Formats: sequence, C-alpha cells, structure tokens
Amino acid sequence: GESIKGQKGEKKKVLVTETVLRDAHQSLMATRMRTEDMLSVAAKMDEIGYYSFEMWGGATFDAAMRFLNEDPWERLRALRRVVKKTKLQMLLRGQNIVGYKHYPDDVVREFVKRAVGNGLDIIRVFDALNDLRNMEVAADQVKKEGAHLQLSICYTISPVHTLESFAQLALEMKEMGADSICIKDMAGLLSPVAAYRLVKAIKEKCDLPVQVHTHYTSGMGSMAYLAAILAGADVVDCAISPFSMGTSQPPTESLVASLKDSIYDTGIELQDLVPIANHFKEVRKKNEDLIVGLTGVDINVLIYQIPGGMYSNLVSQLKEQNALDKLDSVLKEVPKVRQEMGYPPLVTPTSQIVGTQATLNVLVGKRWHMVPNEVKMYFLGYYGKPPAPVDPEVAKKVIGEEKPITCRPGEILPPGLEEARKAVEPWILQPEDVLSYALFPNVAKDFLMRKFARTLKRDVGFEDVIEGVAYPV
Amino acid sequence: GESIKGQKGEKKKVLVTETVLRDAHQSLMATRMRTEDMLSVAAKMDEIGYYSFEMWGGATFDAAMRFLNEDPWERLRALRRVVKKTKLQMLLRGQNIVGYKHYPDDVVREFVKRAVGNGLDIIRVFDALNDLRNMEVAADQVKKEGAHLQLSICYTISPVHTLESFAQLALEMKEMGADSICIKDMAGLLSPVAAYRLVKAIKEKCDLPVQVHTHYTSGMGSMAYLAAILAGADVVDCAISPFSMGTSQPPTESLVASLKDSIYDTGIELQDLVPIANHFKEVRKKNEDLIVGLTGVDINVLIYQIPGGMYSNLVSQLKEQNALDKLDSVLKEVPKVRQEMGYPPLVTPTSQIVGTQATLNVLVGKRWHMVPNEVKMYFLGYYGKPPAPVDPEVAKKVIGEEKPITCRPGEILPPGLEEARKAVEPWILQPEDVLSYALFPNVAKDFLMRKFARTLKRDVGFEDVIEGVAYPV
Ligand SMILES: [Co+2]
Ligand SMILES: [Co+2]
Repeated sequence: GESIKGQKGEKKKVLVTETVLRDAHQSLMATRMRTEDMLSVAAKMDEIGYYSFEMWGGATFDAAMRFLNEDPWERLRALRRVVKKTKLQMLLRGQNIVGYKHYPDDVVREFVKRAVGNGLDIIRVFDALNDLRNMEVAADQVKKEGAHLQLSICYTISPVHTLESFAQLALEMKEMGADSICIKDMAGLLSPVAAYRLVKAIKEKCDLPVQVHTHYTSGMGSMAYLAAILAGADVVDCAISPFSMGTSQPPTESLVASLKDSIYDTGIELQDLVPIANHFKEVRKKNEDLIVGLTGVDINVLIYQIPGGMYSNLVSQLKEQNALDKLDSVLKEVPKVRQEMGYPPLVTPTSQIVGTQATLNVLVGKRWHMVPNEVKMYFLGYYGKPPAPVDPEVAKKVIGEEKPITCRPGEILPPGLEEARKAVEPWILQPEDVLSYALFPNVAKDFLMRKFARTLKRDVGFEDVIEGVAYPV
Repeated sequence: GESIKGQKGEKKKVLVTETVLRDAHQSLMATRMRTEDMLSVAAKMDEIGYYSFEMWGGATFDAAMRFLNEDPWERLRALRRVVKKTKLQMLLRGQNIVGYKHYPDDVVREFVKRAVGNGLDIIRVFDALNDLRNMEVAADQVKKEGAHLQLSICYTISPVHTLESFAQLALEMKEMGADSICIKDMAGLLSPVAAYRLVKAIKEKCDLPVQVHTHYTSGMGSMAYLAAILAGADVVDCAISPFSMGTSQPPTESLVASLKDSIYDTGIELQDLVPIANHFKEVRKKNEDLIVGLTGVDINVLIYQIPGGMYSNLVSQLKEQNALDKLDSVLKEVPKVRQEMGYPPLVTPTSQIVGTQATLNVLVGKRWHMVPNEVKMYFLGYYGKPPAPVDPEVAKKVIGEEKPITCRPGEILPPGLEEARKAVEPWILQPEDVLSYALFPNVAKDFLMRKFARTLKRDVGFEDVIEGVAYPV
C-alpha cells in the first residue's frame, strides 16, 4: 500500500502528535511557554482527535523553574486534569533524564515513577549516542510503571549509520520492551528518500508502530513525513501552524489537509484546528521578543549535515575570537573530528563537544593539541559507546595511556536521591521536589525556596511582606 | 515507477524552474526586484543546471515601469545577454497579456513576437476561466515565433473541476499546439493526493511534459511536488530559499536535497546554490520594508479554499465598512456566489469579482441586489465562458433580458497598435515602446517620457539639469 491515490486499498489512519506544548516552543520560543497559555486551550485541544500531546520533558523542566517560576510537576498535573482523552507524552534523555549529564540510577527510576504517577502515558527515551545502555534503566522503569515505552533512534548520516544498523537498533529496542520506535531527526537531515527507506527497513525488521519526529530546518520536513507515511509510518509529530516550521516541526494543518480523503486520513477536521491556531497565534504575538528560530530554510543543515543551532554556535564562537575567516576551515574540520570520534550523532551534548574540538583544532593550528575536559570524558567512555571505534592515534593524544571505562556509564554513579532529600528537606512540599533538586540543584533550590515562601505566605496571609523581603523573584 | 526508493528502475531526472526573478518577488516583495539585483548573479545562476528561469511577465512588466523606472524590455535583453545555457520563461495572462483586461488581437500578437524576439524561450499562457479561446491568439503566435508553448491549467476545486475535465482540457491544449502543460495552483490548494491524481490523469490522456506550479501558502507545496513527481511530473517551479515559502514557491534547496541520490535526482549540486542563496538573502535584507508575504501557513486557504490575498482583501473591505463581524457570513457567501457564477477559479480578476459580490450580498442584506459593473460584464460573457453554466435566476437579476456574447471576447475588440503608436510617437526609442503604451497607457507614457529625457540628456551631456526640471521621478 505505498500509493497515495487512496481510492482502493485498506484504510491506514495516520496519527498525529501535537508538539506545540513542548518541542515547538522549545525550538522557536526559548522554551518559555507558560502553563496558563496551555491550560486555557487544553480542553479544546483534547477534542481534536490528536493521538497525543508532547507536553513535558526536554528543556521544559529546567526552563519552567529557571525562567518562569513554575513547577513542572504542577504543569503536568494541571494538564492531566483537563486532558481526558488524549495521551500525554514526554521526552526523556535516557540517563540524562531532562538534564545535560548522566544521573544516578535511583534518580532515573524515581523520576520515571513520578512522571507516570503524575499522569504521563508515553515516555519517549533517547540517547545522543544511540547507546542502549544509557536508555536501559529508564526503559525498565517505564515498563514497571505500565506506561508506553517509546525508544528513540537519533537519526544521523555516516558510513556506520546504515539502514541495516538502524533496523538492528530498532530490533534491539523491541527486545528491550519498546512499545513503539521513534525516528528522531533532531537536525532536519531526514530526506524523503531516506525516510522512506528507513521506515521500510525498520518495519521489515521489527513489527512495531513507528513514529517520526523531524524539524523543518532544511525545508524537507513535510516531504519526509509524506514519504515515511507511504512507507508505513504510524504517527508523525506536528506543530500547530503558528509554532511550526523553521527549527520547529511541520505544520499540523498542512499534514491534516494533505492526507484528507486519502487512505491515510488523520480523522482530524481542519475546521476544528482554527481556534487552536488562533490561540497560539496570540501566544506567539505576546512573546514576539522571545521568538528566536529562523524562519525559512537553513541551507547549512543540508550542506554540512549539522544542526542549525550548532552552525550558529560555531559562527558566534569564531566571531568572539575575531576569527570568522576560519569558518570554512572549521566546517571542513567538523566531519574529520566526527569521524575520529566514531561518528556520534550531532545532538546535545555531542554537537557542542565536536564543534568545540573542531574549532580548537583550527584556531590552535595543530590538531588535537588542546582538548577540553568534555572531550577527554568522551574518549574515556563516560558518555557511552560511540557508534564506531574512535581513532586510536587520536585517542592516544587525548587520553594517553588511560583506559576507557567499558561498563554502562550510569553504573559507576553513587545513588543521589537521599542526599538530595537532605539538602532540600526544609522546603519540600511534595515528594517530587527532591527530584527537581537532584536534577538541577541550584535552580531548584532557588525555585523551591520561593515556592515554599509563596505557599507559606498564602497560608498565613502575609503575601506581600514575605515575598518582597525574603525571596525576590 | 512511483516508488521513491530509487534503487532500481529507470532514472527520471526532475527539472527545476527557478522563480526568484519573477513569481517569488511578485509574491513576497511587491514585485520590486531590480534588474541590477538579477544581473549581478545571473551568470552564476546560469551555471547551476536549472531547466529555466521564470523572469518576465505577470506583474513585473507593469511594476518595472511604475515603481522601478525600469524598461521591462531592457531587463529581458540584459538577462538574455548573460544567461546563455538556461531557458528564459515568462507568464502570459492569455488575452490579458501582462495586464488586467483583454487586449486586442494585434497587440497580443505583436507582444508575443517581441517577447520571443528579445530572447524568451518558453511562454506560459493561462486564462483565469480556463477558457481556451482566451489563450488562442497568444498560443498561435507563440507557435509562429517558434518558441516553446506551455499552456496552463488554473487549478481549482469544484464539482465541475474533475480529473476528467482537467485531463480533457490538457488534451485540447495539446491539440492547440502546446509543447507542455502547466498545472498552475495559484492559491496553494493542491494537496499531494490531488497532485498525484491530477498528474496521472493528465499523463494518461495526453503525452506531454507536465510542469507543476504552486504556492506555499497552505504549507502543502513541497508535498504536492513530491507526489506530483511520483506521478510523473517533469518540471517543478521552486524559489531559492530566501525568497521561498509563505505566499511564494517551495524552496529550491529542499527539493534538490530531497531528490538527491534518488531516481529523480535534479542533477543540481546543493553546494552550487549557496552563493545564489547568499545573494538573494542580501537582496531580501535590502528590501525588508517591502516584504509583504506572510511567513508560515495560512489556514484560511485550506478551510475556505480561497487564495490568501482574497481572504485579506475581504477582511480589509469589511473593516472599512465597520462590519468585520460579518466576516463569517461573507466567507459562507463566497462558495454560493461562486457556484451561481459557474465555479470560476479564484484568481485575478475572478477572485476580486466573486469576493466583492459576496461582500455586497451580505452587507446589503439582499442577495444580488447591488451588482458592480464587473459582475455584469462577467455575466455578459466578456471575461469568457464560465466553467459551468451560470445560475439562470441570478443571471436574470444581474443582466435582465440582455443577451451575453458567445464569441471569443477578444474578437470584438478593435485593433489597438496603430493608435498606441500615434499616441506615443514622440518618445519612441524602440518598437517595443508602442506595446508598453498599448498595455499601460498612463504608466508607460510617464515612463517613456522620462526615459526619453534621460537618453537625450545622456546624449547631450546635461544629465542633472534636465532630469530635475522636466520629469521628476
Ligand atoms: Co525535536
Ligand atoms: Co504563481
């Protein structure tokens, strides 16, 4: 059934995940959407017929406390109260949870438990290196909690990232208990041809639902979805039009309209999306000064196969050093460094690690002469296993005779919960506060103290006095 | 060969027409791109491997003289001198040529003769009602001049615009001498499903190359191209990224990247497009205040199936009348009026005619009570034959017992060239000046007088003196 004529053949309803509550505003609006701007439209969104809302995880956990003075757990519960039919879904960075480093196993398990306990249905788990060991603990706990486990493949292009290797990865994910597979194209590299082949390859190897996630950065996003759907993809991630395209997802309305009256009809009525689009048009307008995503197409993504964010980081790093004339050399250095490091997918944190090293190699004038600590840790195995072996000559320069760890990186971390509990004890209002602290000690401590004071003053009736004096926002 | 796997099967190179020199800046930048901004990059563009440049016709003829003080004929010759490998192509509005009303046959023929004589290779001819009689004279002259005749189908959605009727139209176009068929989706209504079916239907009925032209307004443009290509489309119209999307065409780079290494590979190298994109990024920046096209997706196009421009016209008409609360009623009135008028495609000028009548029907409170002259002319047959018969009851209200003409509208117009020649005689510097005047008497007269003075002063060496005094710009 790879025809789109849709006049004959079985119906194959395509499901839609709406990302406006998480990835779309993380990509376009510095992760600054407020809970109130979600809640006021959530009941209406619940009637649309979406498969799920991606509305938690990624950078939103940190950003809620840090910039919005909001409790991420309260957001989750508040949305769950209103959203009764649609599944709620989050992005979990494997052992990194919703942060930027590996956390101890007990923190991972407790986080997953509380996430599901507070209302999440689907947990999408990924690791920047596609190292399954970094997803293992989280995956196990998701299964224990009885939630939907979606394991995610970071899509990238390299000689070792073949159709076969991706399909094999999907199969191993199935064996780990995955209820579905996500193809996560964080950089917008996935062409329609690649999407078609990849979905086919995965579907042939492992009979699980496949969800596709892309970014519009290169302008290929909608085409990639169409091709993936022709190949049998089950769910696609879209963003309602005011928060779509650029570095965000393909527009929901265009996909819905495109599949209308075909065998892939999403079942969503375009007319029903109008009030949703109007709502988020206002939210976008209200936050116009925060809108950072480029509109249009970033051709660099297509040429250099690096994420848009990484490209602009390189440019600003070089500008700071008054060395913008070296940009071409750095762009040519990136694939070399990436090869020597065993072809990591370029996504946080590997994109920064590779980018910084490439810049240093060029600016210092001698390759692998100056090496930041993160790069050492990478070669020592603390980020996980690279997709291909690293270059042994380079490894010798970077870590000398030191032996890389070969175990699961999370294994060597001591438990973290108990210590976190102690540190934040006086301000705990809910068990989840311990997790917030374990993940982001500084941010969470400030936030929890403010929250505690706010709650207290509310209880005793001295709002203004206490807020102004003790804990300025 | 409708698979996109591209691992087996015959190669089927997809050709690309670049629209940045015409439609893209007409759609996004009020048709204000200057010849110098084209010339400085044209030689580089000529090396890319494009099939053609759409770089003349449409609104550019009028705009060049009116706003840029430029001679459109000089633009054509200047580009032709530089562009040696790539075909040059224009948009011709049938008997409307590059204007907004029917012109006499002798003007049409002379225009086509001069257009080809000055260097055009491909003439794309369309009519708002798809009335072949309005394309007949132009088509005949294109063939006589030995140029490539591309006849164009205005795509629209209605009960009488079936796959069969479109395919039949294409067949009749072939019989008129068309060298290729264009599917012209001026409103961005063409879904991938519709594109696939339509290209298939046309290809089955008439064995001619098919070129697809769409606008990104609804966000479906790239998907429509991909589907059309799977169905056998030969050429697609794209715009280099800085002038793409929104109300313009799908981005060139994304299409090129999407088809890379498939059987549809365009043969264009992405890397080669970088300097082109950079050039037009600068042009866009320089003209930022003129950029009018919306970015993102216009959901109204999908819901009401009306062009973005028509929707915003309705809104501003109602605002002027302090009757914005009537918008919903007007939007519901549009399809009724369109049905009663025999389902004209909504494109200039029919979109204005239908929109104004729908607004009047609602504001007056009585349908077809107040009727502007254009609507009368439409019912009297002066625009051509509507796709379906008009409603006889409505026709009676509009034109009473008057009999509509049934002949070709252009037939009843007296010749216009000789009179134009006389009117503009003193300022003629080239034979083409007569045509400029015949098309836009007021604009051309002003322009030609300025040009004459400029040329004169250049010859006698008094540039500043004459320019400032006689003909202020
Ligand atoms: Co994402
Ligand atoms: Co157009």
